[in-house]
Amino acid sequence: MGVGDDSALASRPMTVSGSAFQAVNPATGVALPGEFVTATSDQIEHSVNRAREAAVPLSRFTGTQRAAMLRNVAAALASNEQEIVARAHQETALTLDRLRGELGRTVNQLRLFASVCEEGSWVNARIDTAQPERKPLPKPDVRSMLRPLGPVVVFGASNFPLAFSVAGGDTASALAAGNPVLVKAHPAHPGTSDLVGRVVSTALKELGVPEGAFALLFDAGVEVGRALVMNPFVKAVGFTGSHKAGRALMDLASARPEPIPVFAEMSSSNPLFVLPGALCERGDQIAAGLVASFTVGVGQFCTKPGIVFVQAGRRADDFVARIAELAGGVNEGVLLTRGIADKYRAGVKNRTGFVRSLAAGTQTQACSAAVAVFKTEFANIRSNRELIEELFGPSVLIVLYQDASDLLEFTRFMPGQLTATLHGTDADLRQASSLMEALQPRVGRIIVNGYPTGVEVCHAMVHGGAYPATSDSRFTSVGTLAIYRFARPVCFQNFPDEALPDELKDANPLGILRFVNGQMSREKIAP
Amino acid sequence: MGVGDDSALASRPMTVSGSAFQAVNPATGVALPGEFVTATSDQIEHSVNRAREAAVPLSRFTGTQRAAMLRNVAAALASNEQEIVARAHQETALTLDRLRGELGRTVNQLRLFASVCEEGSWVNARIDTAQPERKPLPKPDVRSMLRPLGPVVVFGASNFPLAFSVAGGDTASALAAGNPVLVKAHPAHPGTSDLVGRVVSTALKELGVPEGAFALLFDAGVEVGRALVMNPFVKAVGFTGSHKAGRALMDLASARPEPIPVFAEMSSSNPLFVLPGALCERGDQIAAGLVASFTVGVGQFCTKPGIVFVQAGRRADDFVARIAELAGGVNEGVLLTRGIADKYRAGVKNRTGFVRSLAAGTQTQACSAAVAVFKTEFANIRSNRELIEELFGPSVLIVLYQDASDLLEFTRFMPGQLTATLHGTDADLRQASSLMEALQPRVGRIIVNGYPTGVEVCHAMVHGGAYPATSDSRFTSVGTLAIYRFARPVCFQNFPDEALPDELKDANPLGILRFVNGQMSREKIAP
Repeated sequence: MGVGDDSALASRPMTVSGSAFQAVNPATGVALPGEFVTATSDQIEHSVNRAREAAVPLSRFTGTQRAAMLRNVAAALASNEQEIVARAHQETALTLDRLRGELGRTVNQLRLFASVCEEGSWVNARIDTAQPERKPLPKPDVRSMLRPLGPVVVFGASNFPLAFSVAGGDTASALAAGNPVLVKAHPAHPGTSDLVGRVVSTALKELGVPEGAFALLFDAGVEVGRALVMNPFVKAVGFTGSHKAGRALMDLASARPEPIPVFAEMSSSNPLFVLPGALCERGDQIAAGLVASFTVGVGQFCTKPGIVFVQAGRRADDFVARIAELAGGVNEGVLLTRGIADKYRAGVKNRTGFVRSLAAGTQTQACSAAVAVFKTEFANIRSNRELIEELFGPSVLIVLYQDASDLLEFTRFMPGQLTATLHGTDADLRQASSLMEALQPRVGRIIVNGYPTGVEVCHAMVHGGAYPATSDSRFTSVGTLAIYRFARPVCFQNFPDEALPDELKDANPLGILRFVNGQMSREKIAP
Repeated sequence: MGVGDDSALASRPMTVSGSAFQAVNPATGVALPGEFVTATSDQIEHSVNRAREAAVPLSRFTGTQRAAMLRNVAAALASNEQEIVARAHQETALTLDRLRGELGRTVNQLRLFASVCEEGSWVNARIDTAQPERKPLPKPDVRSMLRPLGPVVVFGASNFPLAFSVAGGDTASALAAGNPVLVKAHPAHPGTSDLVGRVVSTALKELGVPEGAFALLFDAGVEVGRALVMNPFVKAVGFTGSHKAGRALMDLASARPEPIPVFAEMSSSNPLFVLPGALCERGDQIAAGLVASFTVGVGQFCTKPGIVFVQAGRRADDFVARIAELAGGVNEGVLLTRGIADKYRAGVKNRTGFVRSLAAGTQTQACSAAVAVFKTEFANIRSNRELIEELFGPSVLIVLYQDASDLLEFTRFMPGQLTATLHGTDADLRQASSLMEALQPRVGRIIVNGYPTGVEVCHAMVHGGAYPATSDSRFTSVGTLAIYRFARPVCFQNFPDEALPDELKDANPLGILRFVNGQMSREKIAP
């Protein structure tokens, strides 16, 4: 997502457990009402123990029961929209419209995972029936399905105070898979987190869900997160934030006596390639789309297109001029936190030393950010690789390349990316087949003639990509595939039918799709 | 798998690159013909570079082409059976029958993955079609499928010189997923590895597969393996061996600038619970099955039942006596290497200090192992947790428990296991439902009224389990699910049909099962 203020995770403690802190309105710099208390070691241990106790009863919940949980949370969030959005607006300076949209997405995400649970086939039930007569050895009855991992720690993200926070995609997918969830609230929006956390707790309590199934913990610093990740009963971690903080969590988790998986979505500059035919046909239109995409949400999207490639020449000059012109008309925005604003300013200043600055307004407030447009030659990014790194905020770097071989060369040293985008005519795209192929090993999602921001929450979505875009390119944090981060297969050999989970019983009482002796089927198995 | 001689991976270098070594016949202690040369840094780099170059062309191979590769390797292995098995027998002291069986399994594994590639649906193709009219925002066309990771390093295992070595399950599944494979031969059977490696290379060459798709490297020590895992172009690791070596590889891989997944299958004592009704009904029969299971292959199976729980009482005494009697009749066997034999002897000696030894023959040769049966009370393993650890070789520890709560307590401190087994009557099993449930979070496969050795290679198999049984309980190294270790989803948004992989094209030219707008289907998509 970018270099946020959570990068302190990698460094020394900032807070003392039990100490109180307040949220700050980034638009005014004024502290907001409400005190939040950094969790003590005892509170952390208590929460994890309750989660541990809830794990087995929660793993017994049927898909229908899990769906009911998620739907109840969704409904409660929707009916508390006004209060949540108002507080989130104060804590993040994101617009009310954007936050209403984000709340809608959060509600839809919960309902989408509910539908996955209700349908039930996601568990990848596999059945190989016995062949007692097989020679030289009889074949046993072997069945397997996905089961929960155990308590999952979710870190709220600063840039999506709803969709990637307390009741966001990580929480929804971890609960859908049957795991207890412990959320570490992001310190930039504790009030929003608290409101959402209460909504979740109440919604789960109404349905008689074990209390330990969900917990919310606060921390102005990093110690609570660390303690949660190091707790032996925690079995997985979901995180969206900076590369530095994500890597620190990965390192903590892999050094545990029992290492656990960390799903960290961290850092991506989302290259966008404007191919020659498209530049010629609709350069102005692409320029407009690009400016909208890199400035939406004050450039604080994980998928912001931060680096744009265009073939050097007169048309490229026009394209760059158009972007500079459009960017000049975008109002200064307020970034999420003072820390993010300071980093953005430092990043812009640093780039100015390397590349040509085409549009850079002045910042009038501590947390505000002016749009920044930079231009450079391909040779410069070849020798200054730090230019490829994400600069979180409303900035873009336009790179003038000479020919297609430059783009292929770029794919060889490009860090892993959440997305890559190509704008091209049909002829451009046919000629770019090697580029498309070369991008695949490093990129989670490749977009043609569109923009990477606005991640669709659907079955086919992959919000992943090679390191450092994410910690593990085999998974996604958006879309229904995200549930597979929090489950593992368990195999039952020669079980009596009554001792099997319903998903694996001969009669297929849930009517799910299963892989039976190598064929997908909803049929019963003849006893 | 156990504490093998590969544990040196965790310690200092043992060999100098370019130096030659020979295999030793563990049954005689005599060096075998043939010199093998530890790969130099240049050779390692050359092999990885060739693998890197092969990755893109190999990723273009259709499922049919990948299947042809695997089938050609399988056929070539089968036709070279005699020579391979003869050499493996000399290098491992495993019986010719066992090795013929293992070669058959290796061939079948390759063919099973070939059938998965041919059928083609394993790629998890997902298609969400566009809704250009959707409000407030149009829905883009989003499609995703699994693609290869890139070069995979496979470590040959000492205890399965064929099925978990050069052309074993890791290699078969990594190739099936479209990845180049670099095998580090196990130093205990370099001649077998060399024969199999030549068979694989020739079989691939006959089909015009890029040369870099497969490489075999030797090392008497650990430096070659380390260098491979640290190479930036290596994208995943498959390993079967000791906990110490596996953890060393996990630590190396997670400390890389770009961390990569390690699939290590390491250590399991595979608890077996004899429930009271079954003990009463068929104690003698279970004793016989158990002795056969823990002594097969001289106790060198990853799934050897190493710890057995039986309720204290007269029947337990009879059961223990019967095991001791049967075990006393099992001949001394030859272990795979001197290192394994030394560790087995030390482990047996160490246990003798803690628990009662019931049968322990004398060892007549450097690499030979006598069967060892130990007995203790539950209270003893509660306070001496090292008794639960795997003792690789033909040994078993019988634990007398008082009541069912002891077993539940055991699941709370039990390390992660590949398997757990229950022997019980229908009534026993109904009463043991809490135990079965408590085992699930820590165990990959739960077996009822059977034995864990003899892992069926099928679609539903899970040869996994919580750490330290494996590095990542979300995956398996046996069965067709093993292919999912070596693939990751890539998403294509708004692609022209002709630029999509065949698996995702509207017309579904491969006729695979796909998840289209939330429904499984083999249908075409109307344009």
